[in-house]
Amino acid sequence: MTTTTDALSTAREILRAQPFSRLVGADVSAFGDGGATLELPIREDLLQQNGFVHGGVLSYAADNAITFAAGAALGPAVLTAGYSIDYVRPAVGVTLRARAEVLHAGRRQAVVRCELLTVDEEGAETLCALAQGTVRTVG
Amino acid sequence: MTTTTDALSTAREILRAQPFSRLVGADVSAFGDGGATLELPIREDLLQQNGFVHGGVLSYAADNAITFAAGAALGPAVLTAGYSIDYVRPAVGVTLRARAEVLHAGRRQAVVRCELLTVDEEGAETLCALAQGTVRTVG
Amino acid sequence: MTTTTDALSTAREILRAQPFSRLVGADVSAFGDGGATLELPIREDLLQQNGFVHGGVLSYAADNAITFAAGAALGPAVLTAGYSIDYVRPAVGVTLRARAEVLHAGRRQAVVRCELLTVDEEGAETLCALAQGTVRTVG
Amino acid sequence: MTTTTDALSTAREILRAQPFSRLVGADVSAFGDGGATLELPIREDLLQQNGFVHGGVLSYAADNAITFAAGAALGPAVLTAGYSIDYVRPAVGVTLRARAEVLHAGRRQAVVRCELLTVDEEGAETLCALAQGTVRTVG
Repeated sequence: MTTTTDALSTAREILRAQPFSRLVGADVSAFGDGGATLELPIREDLLQQNGFVHGGVLSYAADNAITFAAGAALGPAVLTAGYSIDYVRPAVGVTLRARAEVLHAGRRQAVVRCELLTVDEEGAETLCALAQGTVRTVG
Repeated sequence: MTTTTDALSTAREILRAQPFSRLVGADVSAFGDGGATLELPIREDLLQQNGFVHGGVLSYAADNAITFAAGAALGPAVLTAGYSIDYVRPAVGVTLRARAEVLHAGRRQAVVRCELLTVDEEGAETLCALAQGTVRTVG
Repeated sequence: MTTTTDALSTAREILRAQPFSRLVGADVSAFGDGGATLELPIREDLLQQNGFVHGGVLSYAADNAITFAAGAALGPAVLTAGYSIDYVRPAVGVTLRARAEVLHAGRRQAVVRCELLTVDEEGAETLCALAQGTVRTVG
Repeated sequence: MTTTTDALSTAREILRAQPFSRLVGADVSAFGDGGATLELPIREDLLQQNGFVHGGVLSYAADNAITFAAGAALGPAVLTAGYSIDYVRPAVGVTLRARAEVLHAGRRQAVVRCELLTVDEEGAETLCALAQGTVRTVG
Protein backbone atom coordinates (compact mmCIF):
# COMPACT_ATOMS: atom_id res chain seq x y z
CA MET A 1 0.00 0.00 0.00
CA THR A 2 1.30 3.43 -0.85
CA THR A 3 0.89 6.35 1.47
CA THR A 4 -1.86 8.31 -0.13
CA THR A 5 -3.84 11.21 1.18
CA ASP A 6 -6.89 8.95 1.05
CA ALA A 7 -5.36 6.16 3.10
CA LEU A 8 -4.16 8.66 5.69
CA SER A 9 -7.59 10.30 5.81
CA THR A 10 -9.27 6.96 6.39
CA ALA A 11 -6.80 6.04 9.14
CA ARG A 12 -7.45 9.39 10.82
CA GLU A 13 -11.19 8.81 10.72
CA ILE A 14 -10.79 5.45 12.39
CA LEU A 15 -8.59 6.94 15.10
CA ARG A 16 -11.10 9.72 15.70
CA ALA A 17 -13.81 7.09 16.08
CA GLN A 18 -11.94 5.86 19.18
CA PRO A 19 -13.14 7.86 22.18
CA PHE A 20 -9.97 7.01 24.13
CA SER A 21 -7.74 8.30 21.33
CA ARG A 22 -9.67 11.57 21.42
CA LEU A 23 -9.30 11.70 25.21
CA VAL A 24 -5.50 11.47 24.98
CA GLY A 25 -5.39 13.71 21.91
CA ALA A 26 -3.75 11.34 19.41
CA ASP A 27 -3.58 11.82 15.66
CA VAL A 28 -2.22 9.75 12.76
CA SER A 29 0.66 11.52 11.01
CA ALA A 30 1.70 8.78 8.56
CA PHE A 31 -0.05 5.68 7.26
CA GLY A 32 0.82 3.14 4.57
CA ASP A 33 3.85 1.35 3.12
CA GLY A 34 3.75 -1.15 5.94
CA GLY A 35 3.84 1.39 8.71
CA ALA A 36 1.96 3.98 10.71
CA THR A 37 2.93 6.88 12.92
CA LEU A 38 0.79 8.28 15.73
CA GLU A 39 1.50 11.54 17.52
CA LEU A 40 0.07 13.25 20.54
CA PRO A 41 0.87 16.56 22.19
CA ILE A 42 2.36 16.00 25.66
CA ARG A 43 0.22 17.79 28.22
CA GLU A 44 -0.10 17.77 32.02
CA ASP A 45 -2.96 15.24 31.93
CA LEU A 46 -0.71 12.57 30.42
CA LEU A 47 2.02 12.60 33.09
CA GLN A 48 2.86 10.50 36.12
CA GLN A 49 3.83 11.84 39.54
CA ASN A 50 7.40 12.86 38.59
CA GLY A 51 6.50 14.89 35.51
CA PHE A 52 7.32 12.24 32.91
CA VAL A 53 4.85 10.93 30.36
CA HIS A 54 2.99 8.06 32.06
CA GLY A 55 4.05 4.57 30.97
CA GLY A 56 0.40 3.91 30.27
CA VAL A 57 0.42 6.65 27.62
CA LEU A 58 3.50 5.16 25.97
CA SER A 59 1.75 1.79 26.11
CA TYR A 60 -1.42 3.21 24.56
CA ALA A 61 0.62 4.77 21.74
CA ALA A 62 2.57 1.54 21.12
CA ASP A 63 -0.56 -0.62 21.14
CA ASN A 64 -2.42 1.64 18.76
CA ALA A 65 0.47 2.37 16.37
CA ILE A 66 1.14 -1.38 16.13
CA THR A 67 -2.50 -2.01 15.28
CA PHE A 68 -2.61 0.76 12.66
CA ALA A 69 0.66 -0.34 11.03
CA ALA A 70 -0.66 -3.87 10.74
CA GLY A 71 -3.88 -2.48 9.32
CA ALA A 72 -1.82 -0.80 6.59
CA ALA A 73 -0.58 -4.26 5.61
CA LEU A 74 -3.53 -6.55 6.41
CA GLY A 75 -6.55 -4.28 5.99
CA PRO A 76 -8.74 -2.67 8.63
CA ALA A 77 -10.25 -5.81 10.22
CA VAL A 78 -7.42 -6.61 12.61
CA LEU A 79 -6.94 -7.17 16.33
CA THR A 80 -3.69 -6.84 18.26
CA ALA A 81 -3.02 -10.19 19.93
CA GLY A 82 -0.34 -8.87 22.23
CA TYR A 83 2.92 -6.99 22.44
CA SER A 84 5.90 -6.43 24.65
CA ILE A 85 7.39 -3.06 25.54
CA ASP A 86 10.81 -2.13 26.95
CA TYR A 87 11.24 1.33 28.43
CA VAL A 88 14.63 2.91 27.88
CA ARG A 89 14.39 6.35 29.50
CA PRO A 90 11.89 8.73 31.12
CA ALA A 91 9.80 10.52 28.49
CA VAL A 92 9.83 14.31 28.38
CA GLY A 93 9.17 16.65 25.46
CA VAL A 94 6.59 18.48 23.43
CA THR A 95 5.18 15.62 21.37
CA LEU A 96 5.03 11.85 21.77
CA ARG A 97 5.58 9.99 18.49
CA ALA A 98 4.90 6.27 18.01
CA ARG A 99 6.45 5.06 14.77
CA ALA A 100 5.44 1.50 13.89
CA GLU A 101 6.85 -0.62 11.07
CA VAL A 102 5.63 -4.03 9.89
CA LEU A 103 8.54 -6.48 10.15
CA HIS A 104 6.64 -9.39 8.67
CA ALA A 105 3.16 -9.74 7.22
CA GLY A 106 1.58 -13.02 6.21
CA ARG A 107 -1.95 -13.44 4.96
CA ARG A 108 -3.53 -13.42 8.42
CA GLN A 109 -0.89 -12.12 10.80
CA ALA A 110 1.73 -9.38 11.09
CA VAL A 111 4.62 -8.78 13.46
CA VAL A 112 5.21 -5.10 14.05
CA ARG A 113 7.92 -3.08 15.76
CA CYS A 114 7.26 0.33 17.31
CA GLU A 115 9.63 3.06 18.42
CA LEU A 116 8.32 5.47 21.05
CA LEU A 117 10.00 8.84 20.73
CA THR A 118 9.61 12.20 22.35
CA VAL A 119 10.12 15.27 20.20
CA ASP A 120 11.43 18.54 21.63
CA GLU A 121 10.74 22.13 20.53
CA GLU A 122 13.39 21.94 17.80
CA GLY A 123 11.94 18.71 16.44
CA ALA A 124 14.76 16.54 17.78
CA GLU A 125 13.69 12.96 18.62
CA THR A 126 14.68 11.01 21.73
CA LEU A 127 13.95 7.30 21.99
CA CYS A 128 12.08 6.39 25.17
CA ALA A 129 10.67 2.90 24.59
CA LEU A 130 10.58 0.04 22.07
CA ALA A 131 7.78 -2.43 21.46
CA GLN A 132 7.11 -5.53 19.35
CA GLY A 133 3.66 -6.97 18.80
CA THR A 134 1.57 -9.43 16.84
CA VAL A 135 -1.65 -8.48 15.05
CA ARG A 136 -4.12 -10.83 13.39
CA THR A 137 -7.00 -10.49 11.01
CA VAL A 138 -10.48 -11.12 12.39
CA GLY A 139 -13.55 -12.70 10.87
CA MET B 1 4.19 -6.30 53.83
CA THR B 2 0.68 -6.75 55.17
CA THR B 3 -2.26 -4.98 53.66
CA THR B 4 -2.95 -2.23 56.12
CA THR B 5 -5.19 0.76 55.84
CA ASP B 6 -2.07 2.93 55.96
CA ALA B 7 -0.28 1.18 53.11
CA LEU B 8 -3.41 1.34 50.99
CA SER B 9 -3.85 5.02 51.77
CA THR B 10 -0.28 5.77 50.76
CA ALA B 11 -0.67 3.84 47.51
CA ARG B 12 -3.85 5.77 46.75
CA GLU B 13 -2.10 9.07 47.33
CA ILE B 14 0.66 8.10 44.90
CA LEU B 15 -1.90 7.09 42.28
CA ARG B 16 -3.77 10.35 42.72
CA ALA B 17 -0.51 12.22 42.22
CA GLN B 18 -0.47 10.82 38.66
CA PRO B 19 -2.44 13.17 36.40
CA PHE B 20 -2.98 10.41 33.82
CA SER B 21 -4.44 8.07 36.45
CA ARG B 22 -6.89 10.81 37.41
CA LEU B 23 -7.74 11.35 33.73
CA VAL B 24 -8.71 7.69 33.28
CA GLY B 25 -10.36 7.54 36.71
CA ALA B 26 -8.26 4.79 38.31
CA ASP B 27 -8.16 3.92 42.00
CA VAL B 28 -6.19 1.42 44.11
CA SER B 29 -8.50 -1.16 45.71
CA ALA B 30 -5.87 -3.43 47.29
CA PHE B 31 -2.20 -2.98 48.13
CA GLY B 32 0.31 -5.11 50.00
CA ASP B 33 1.24 -8.76 50.51
CA GLY B 34 3.15 -8.75 47.25
CA GLY B 35 0.30 -7.50 45.15
CA ALA B 36 -1.84 -4.56 44.11
CA THR B 37 -5.22 -4.15 42.48
CA LEU B 38 -6.28 -1.14 40.44
CA GLU B 39 -9.83 -0.47 39.35
CA LEU B 40 -11.46 2.01 37.05
CA PRO B 41 -15.08 2.57 36.07
CA ILE B 42 -15.61 1.80 32.38
CA ARG B 43 -16.99 4.88 30.65
CA GLU B 44 -17.48 6.02 27.05
CA ASP B 45 -14.18 7.94 27.03
CA LEU B 46 -12.18 4.75 27.52
CA LEU B 47 -13.52 2.82 24.54
CA GLN B 48 -12.32 2.13 21.00
CA GLN B 49 -14.44 2.35 17.85
CA ASN B 50 -16.37 -0.91 18.42
CA GLY B 51 -17.49 -0.18 21.97
CA PHE B 52 -14.86 -2.26 23.75
CA VAL B 53 -12.42 -0.90 26.31
CA HIS B 54 -9.43 0.39 24.33
CA GLY B 55 -6.33 -1.83 24.43
CA GLY B 56 -4.41 1.22 25.55
CA VAL B 57 -6.56 1.40 28.69
CA LEU B 58 -5.90 -2.26 29.46
CA SER B 59 -2.20 -1.57 28.87
CA TYR B 60 -2.26 1.44 31.18
CA ALA B 61 -3.91 -0.62 33.90
CA ALA B 62 -1.44 -3.50 33.46
CA ASP B 63 1.59 -1.21 33.47
CA ASN B 64 0.47 0.64 36.56
CA ALA B 65 -0.76 -2.36 38.56
CA ILE B 66 2.55 -4.12 37.85
CA THR B 67 4.46 -1.08 39.11
CA PHE B 68 2.34 -0.78 42.25
CA ALA B 69 2.56 -4.50 43.05
CA ALA B 70 6.34 -4.35 42.76
CA GLY B 71 6.30 -1.26 44.95
CA ALA B 72 4.52 -3.29 47.61
CA ALA B 73 7.50 -5.67 47.59
CA LEU B 74 10.47 -3.39 46.80
CA GLY B 75 9.40 -0.01 48.20
CA PRO B 76 8.16 3.07 46.37
CA ALA B 77 11.34 3.94 44.38
CA VAL B 78 10.76 1.60 41.44
CA LEU B 79 10.53 1.83 37.66
CA THR B 80 8.87 -0.69 35.36
CA ALA B 81 11.52 -1.89 32.90
CA GLY B 82 9.04 -3.50 30.56
CA TYR B 83 6.19 -5.95 30.23
CA SER B 84 4.34 -8.09 27.75
CA ILE B 85 0.59 -8.33 27.41
CA ASP B 86 -1.61 -10.93 25.71
CA TYR B 87 -5.22 -10.00 24.99
CA VAL B 88 -7.71 -12.84 25.33
CA ARG B 89 -11.09 -11.29 24.58
CA PRO B 90 -12.77 -7.91 23.96
CA ALA B 91 -13.35 -6.07 27.23
CA VAL B 92 -16.88 -5.04 28.17
CA GLY B 93 -18.37 -4.40 31.60
CA VAL B 94 -18.92 -1.93 34.38
CA THR B 95 -15.45 -1.89 35.95
CA LEU B 96 -11.96 -2.74 34.74
CA ARG B 97 -9.88 -4.50 37.40
CA ALA B 98 -6.10 -5.03 37.14
CA ARG B 99 -4.94 -7.54 39.73
CA ALA B 100 -1.16 -7.81 39.94
CA GLU B 101 0.82 -10.35 41.94
CA VAL B 102 4.58 -10.44 42.52
CA LEU B 103 5.89 -13.78 41.26
CA HIS B 104 9.47 -13.20 42.34
CA ALA B 105 11.13 -10.36 44.23
CA GLY B 106 14.86 -10.05 44.72
CA ARG B 107 16.58 -7.16 46.40
CA ARG B 108 16.53 -4.91 43.34
CA GLN B 109 14.08 -6.46 40.88
CA ALA B 110 10.65 -8.07 40.82
CA VAL B 111 8.77 -10.06 38.21
CA VAL B 112 5.04 -9.44 38.37
CA ARG B 113 2.01 -11.00 36.73
CA CYS B 114 -1.20 -9.09 36.10
CA GLU B 115 -4.70 -10.26 35.27
CA LEU B 116 -6.96 -7.77 33.49
CA LEU B 117 -10.60 -8.45 34.29
CA THR B 118 -13.86 -6.78 33.53
CA VAL B 119 -16.54 -6.85 36.20
CA ASP B 120 -20.24 -6.82 35.36
CA GLU B 121 -23.19 -5.39 37.32
CA GLU B 122 -23.44 -8.53 39.46
CA GLY B 123 -19.73 -8.40 40.28
CA ALA B 124 -18.82 -11.35 38.05
CA GLU B 125 -15.28 -11.18 36.64
CA THR B 126 -14.28 -11.98 33.04
CA LEU B 127 -10.64 -12.28 32.08
CA CYS B 128 -9.69 -10.09 29.11
CA ALA B 129 -5.88 -9.89 29.13
CA LEU B 130 -2.78 -11.19 30.92
CA ALA B 131 0.53 -9.42 31.41
CA GLN B 132 3.97 -10.13 32.85
CA GLY B 133 6.53 -7.45 33.64
CA THR B 134 9.82 -6.63 35.30
CA VAL B 135 10.25 -3.78 37.76
CA ARG B 136 13.51 -2.51 39.23
CA THR B 137 14.52 -0.24 42.08
CA VAL B 138 16.00 3.13 41.18
CA GLY B 139 18.69 5.22 42.83
CA MET C 1 -8.69 -33.19 30.79
CA THR C 2 -7.64 -35.27 33.77
CA THR C 3 -4.08 -36.42 34.23
CA THR C 4 -4.25 -40.04 33.27
CA THR C 5 -1.49 -42.50 32.62
CA ASP C 6 -2.65 -42.61 29.01
CA ALA C 7 -2.51 -38.86 28.45
CA LEU C 8 0.92 -38.70 30.05
CA SER C 9 2.14 -41.61 27.91
CA THR C 10 0.93 -39.90 24.75
CA ALA C 11 2.61 -36.63 25.71
CA ARG C 12 5.85 -38.50 26.38
CA GLU C 13 5.70 -40.14 22.96
CA ILE C 14 5.28 -36.77 21.28
CA LEU C 15 8.22 -35.34 23.20
CA ARG C 16 10.38 -38.33 22.27
CA ALA C 17 9.46 -37.78 18.62
CA GLN C 18 11.29 -34.42 18.89
CA PRO C 19 14.98 -34.99 18.10
CA PHE C 20 15.96 -31.77 19.89
CA SER C 21 14.14 -32.82 23.06
CA ARG C 22 16.09 -36.09 23.00
CA LEU C 23 19.33 -34.15 22.46
CA VAL C 24 18.76 -32.06 25.60
CA GLY C 25 17.38 -35.06 27.53
CA ALA C 26 13.91 -33.72 28.36
CA ASP C 27 10.99 -35.78 29.66
CA VAL C 28 7.34 -35.00 30.49
CA SER C 29 6.63 -35.53 34.21
CA ALA C 30 3.05 -34.27 34.34
CA PHE C 31 0.39 -33.64 31.69
CA GLY C 32 -3.28 -32.72 31.86
CA ASP C 33 -5.65 -30.56 33.90
CA GLY C 34 -4.61 -27.51 31.94
CA GLY C 35 -0.92 -27.90 32.55
CA ALA C 36 2.27 -29.75 31.73
CA THR C 37 5.64 -30.19 33.41
CA LEU C 38 8.88 -30.94 31.59
CA GLU C 39 12.08 -31.99 33.34
CA LEU C 40 15.62 -32.48 32.23
CA PRO C 41 18.74 -33.55 34.11
CA ILE C 42 21.27 -30.73 34.25
CA ARG C 43 24.53 -31.87 32.68
CA GLU C 44 27.74 -30.23 31.49
CA ASP C 45 26.49 -30.03 27.88
CA LEU C 46 23.65 -27.68 28.85
CA LEU C 47 25.74 -24.98 30.52
CA GLN C 48 27.14 -21.61 29.47
CA GLN C 49 30.69 -20.39 30.13
CA ASN C 50 30.19 -19.64 33.85
CA GLY C 51 28.76 -23.01 34.82
CA PHE C 52 25.08 -21.96 34.84
CA VAL C 53 22.38 -23.60 32.75
CA HIS C 54 22.39 -21.77 29.40
CA GLY C 55 19.55 -19.29 28.87
CA GLY C 56 18.83 -21.13 25.65
CA VAL C 57 18.06 -24.29 27.62
CA LEU C 58 15.68 -22.40 29.90
CA SER C 59 14.09 -20.92 26.77
CA TYR C 60 13.75 -24.34 25.16
CA ALA C 61 12.08 -25.69 28.30
CA ALA C 62 9.71 -22.72 28.55
CA ASP C 63 8.76 -22.87 24.87
CA ASN C 64 8.08 -26.58 24.97
CA ALA C 65 6.28 -26.70 28.32
CA ILE C 66 4.02 -23.85 27.16
CA THR C 67 3.19 -25.77 23.97
CA PHE C 68 2.48 -29.01 25.85
CA ALA C 69 0.32 -27.28 28.49
CA ALA C 70 -1.73 -25.67 25.73
CA GLY C 71 -1.97 -29.05 24.03
CA ALA C 72 -3.51 -30.43 27.24
CA ALA C 73 -6.26 -27.83 26.87
CA LEU C 74 -6.65 -27.44 23.08
CA GLY C 75 -5.59 -30.84 21.72
CA PRO C 76 -2.36 -31.86 20.02
CA ALA C 77 -2.61 -29.71 16.84
CA VAL C 78 -1.19 -26.49 18.27
CA LEU C 79 1.61 -24.05 17.50
CA THR C 80 3.21 -21.62 19.92
CA ALA C 81 2.78 -18.12 18.47
CA GLY C 82 5.27 -16.50 20.81
CA TYR C 83 6.25 -15.97 24.41
CA SER C 84 8.23 -13.70 26.68
CA ILE C 85 10.68 -14.82 29.33
CA ASP C 86 12.15 -12.95 32.31
CA TYR C 87 15.23 -14.43 33.98
CA VAL C 88 15.40 -13.98 37.75
CA ARG C 89 18.61 -15.72 38.80
CA PRO C 90 21.41 -17.95 37.44
CA ALA C 91 20.27 -21.58 37.20
CA VAL C 92 22.21 -24.24 39.07
CA GLY C 93 21.04 -27.62 40.34
CA VAL C 94 20.46 -31.26 39.54
CA THR C 95 17.27 -31.00 37.49
CA LEU C 96 15.61 -28.27 35.44
CA ARG C 97 11.82 -28.26 35.80
CA ALA C 98 9.47 -26.26 33.54
CA ARG C 99 5.99 -26.14 35.06
CA ALA C 100 3.41 -24.64 32.71
CA GLU C 101 -0.19 -23.76 33.54
CA VAL C 102 -2.93 -22.61 31.17
CA LEU C 103 -4.21 -19.23 32.38
CA HIS C 104 -6.89 -18.93 29.74
CA ALA C 105 -8.07 -21.24 26.99
CA GLY C 106 -10.58 -20.31 24.33
CA ARG C 107 -11.62 -22.52 21.47
CA ARG C 108 -8.62 -21.69 19.30
CA GLN C 109 -6.07 -20.04 21.56
CA ALA C 110 -4.54 -20.41 25.02
CA VAL C 111 -2.40 -18.14 27.17
CA VAL C 112 0.02 -20.10 29.30
CA ARG C 113 2.38 -19.22 32.13
CA CYS C 114 5.54 -21.20 32.85
CA GLU C 115 7.80 -21.30 35.90
CA LEU C 116 11.39 -22.42 35.32
CA LEU C 117 12.81 -24.02 38.44
CA THR C 118 16.00 -25.78 39.33
CA VAL C 119 15.79 -28.70 41.76
CA ASP C 120 18.67 -29.58 44.09
CA GLU C 121 19.69 -32.99 45.50
CA GLU C 122 17.13 -32.76 48.31
CA GLY C 123 14.36 -31.91 45.85
CA ALA C 124 14.14 -28.25 46.85
CA GLU C 125 13.00 -25.93 44.04
CA THR C 126 14.53 -22.55 43.18
CA LEU C 127 12.82 -20.23 40.71
CA CYS C 128 15.13 -19.06 37.92
CA ALA C 129 12.85 -17.68 35.19
CA LEU C 130 9.21 -16.92 34.34
CA ALA C 131 7.55 -17.02 30.95
CA GLN C 132 4.17 -16.23 29.40
CA GLY C 133 3.13 -17.35 25.93
CA THR C 134 0.30 -17.68 23.46
CA VAL C 135 -0.51 -20.94 21.65
CA ARG C 136 -3.01 -21.40 18.83
CA THR C 137 -4.66 -24.34 17.14
CA VAL C 138 -3.61 -25.11 13.57
CA GLY C 139 -5.60 -26.36 10.59
CA MET D 1 33.09 -0.71 18.28
CA THR D 2 34.27 -1.62 14.81
CA THR D 3 34.06 -5.13 13.53
CA THR D 4 37.64 -6.27 13.65
CA THR D 5 39.11 -9.70 13.25
CA ASP D 6 40.16 -9.48 16.89
CA ALA D 7 36.71 -8.64 18.23
CA LEU D 8 35.19 -11.44 16.19
CA SER D 9 37.84 -13.89 17.40
CA THR D 10 37.17 -12.99 21.01
CA ALA D 11 33.42 -13.39 20.55
CA ARG D 12 34.00 -16.80 18.98
CA GLU D 13 36.13 -17.90 21.91
CA ILE D 14 33.40 -16.91 24.35
CA LEU D 15 30.79 -18.81 22.33
CA ARG D 16 33.03 -21.89 22.22
CA ALA D 17 33.41 -21.68 26.00
CA GLN D 18 29.64 -22.38 26.21
CA PRO D 19 29.13 -26.16 26.24
CA PHE D 20 25.51 -25.75 25.06
CA SER D 21 26.56 -23.65 22.07
CA ARG D 22 29.00 -26.42 21.10
CA LEU D 23 26.21 -29.00 21.53
CA VAL D 24 23.96 -27.18 19.06
CA GLY D 25 26.87 -26.32 16.77
CA ALA D 26 26.62 -22.51 16.83
CA ASP D 27 29.27 -20.08 15.60
CA VAL D 28 29.58 -16.28 15.55
CA SER D 29 29.71 -14.94 11.97
CA ALA D 30 29.68 -11.20 12.71
CA PHE D 31 30.40 -9.14 15.81
CA GLY D 32 30.70 -5.42 16.45
CA ASP D 33 29.10 -2.12 15.38
CA GLY D 34 26.25 -2.69 17.77
CA GLY D 35 25.31 -6.08 16.47
CA ALA D 36 26.13 -9.77 16.35
CA THR D 37 25.18 -12.66 14.08
CA LEU D 38 25.12 -16.29 15.14
CA GLU D 39 24.78 -19.20 12.72
CA LEU D 40 24.27 -22.90 13.11
CA PRO D 41 23.96 -25.67 10.56
CA ILE D 42 20.48 -27.20 10.64
CA ARG D 43 20.76 -30.91 11.37
CA GLU D 44 18.37 -33.70 12.37
CA ASP D 45 19.18 -33.28 16.09
CA LEU D 46 17.74 -29.75 16.13
CA LEU D 47 14.27 -30.56 14.78
CA GLN D 48 10.86 -31.13 16.31
CA GLN D 49 8.46 -33.95 15.38
CA ASN D 50 7.31 -32.46 12.04
CA GLY D 51 10.76 -31.84 10.60
CA PHE D 52 10.98 -28.12 11.39
CA VAL D 53 13.72 -26.53 13.48
CA HIS D 54 12.56 -26.77 17.11
CA GLY D 55 11.26 -23.54 18.62
CA GLY D 56 13.72 -24.12 21.44
CA VAL D 57 16.60 -23.86 18.95
CA LEU D 58 15.24 -20.59 17.57
CA SER D 59 14.87 -19.38 21.16
CA TYR D 60 18.44 -20.39 22.00
CA ALA D 61 19.73 -18.52 18.95
CA ALA D 62 17.68 -15.41 19.76
CA ASP D 63 18.73 -15.39 23.43
CA ASN D 64 22.40 -15.79 22.62
CA ALA D 65 22.55 -13.40 19.65
CA ILE D 66 20.80 -10.75 21.77
CA THR D 67 23.37 -11.23 24.53
CA PHE D 68 26.32 -11.06 22.12
CA ALA D 69 24.99 -7.97 20.33
CA ALA D 70 24.59 -6.21 23.67
CA GLY D 71 28.10 -7.33 24.59
CA ALA D 72 29.37 -5.59 21.45
CA ALA D 73 27.89 -2.36 22.84
CA LEU D 74 28.25 -2.72 26.62
CA GLY D 75 31.30 -4.98 27.01
CA PRO D 76 31.49 -8.66 27.88
CA ALA D 77 30.08 -8.53 31.45
CA VAL D 78 26.39 -8.61 30.56
CA LEU D 79 23.33 -10.69 31.39
CA THR D 80 20.16 -10.94 29.35
CA ALA D 81 17.27 -9.88 31.59
CA GLY D 82 14.57 -11.23 29.30
CA TYR D 83 13.18 -11.18 25.80
CA SER D 84 10.06 -11.88 23.81
CA ILE D 85 9.88 -13.88 20.61
CA ASP D 86 7.19 -14.06 17.92
CA TYR D 87 7.30 -16.97 15.49
CA VAL D 88 6.21 -16.16 11.94
CA ARG D 89 6.64 -19.43 10.03
CA PRO D 90 8.01 -22.97 10.39
CA ALA D 91 11.80 -23.00 10.01
CA VAL D 92 13.36 -25.16 7.30
CA GLY D 93 16.69 -24.76 5.50
CA VAL D 94 20.39 -25.42 5.56
CA THR D 95 21.52 -22.84 8.11
CA LEU D 96 19.83 -20.96 10.95
CA ARG D 97 20.98 -17.35 11.22
CA ALA D 98 20.26 -15.08 14.21
CA ARG D 99 21.02 -11.47 13.36
CA ALA D 100 20.84 -9.15 16.36
CA GLU D 101 21.04 -5.37 16.33
CA VAL D 102 21.25 -3.02 19.30
CA LEU D 103 18.31 -0.59 19.11
CA HIS D 104 19.33 1.41 22.16
CA ALA D 105 22.32 1.24 24.48
CA GLY D 106 22.67 3.25 27.65
CA ARG D 107 25.53 2.95 30.09
CA ARG D 108 24.15 -0.10 31.86
CA GLN D 109 21.41 -1.51 29.63
CA ALA D 110 20.71 -2.26 25.99
CA VAL D 111 17.55 -3.12 24.07
CA VAL D 112 18.24 -5.47 21.19
CA ARG D 113 16.21 -6.78 18.27
CA CYS D 114 16.92 -10.14 16.64
CA GLU D 115 15.80 -11.59 13.32
CA LEU D 116 15.76 -15.39 13.05
CA LEU D 117 16.29 -16.47 9.46
CA THR D 118 16.77 -19.75 7.70
CA VAL D 119 19.14 -19.85 4.76
CA ASP D 120 18.66 -22.26 1.86
CA GLU D 121 21.27 -23.88 -0.41
CA GLU D 122 21.43 -20.80 -2.67
CA GLY D 123 21.95 -18.52 0.32
CA ALA D 124 18.43 -17.05 0.22
CA GLU D 125 17.12 -15.96 3.62
CA THR D 126 13.60 -16.59 4.96
CA LEU D 127 12.39 -14.88 8.11
CA CYS D 128 11.02 -17.32 10.69
CA ALA D 129 10.90 -15.41 13.99
CA LEU D 130 11.51 -12.00 15.55
CA ALA D 131 12.68 -11.23 19.07
CA GLN D 132 13.30 -8.20 21.28
CA GLY D 133 15.23 -8.33 24.54
CA THR D 134 16.86 -6.33 27.30
CA VAL D 135 20.43 -6.91 28.45
CA ARG D 136 22.14 -5.35 31.46
CA THR D 137 25.68 -5.03 32.69
CA VAL D 138 26.64 -7.01 35.79
CA GLY D 139 28.98 -6.23 38.64
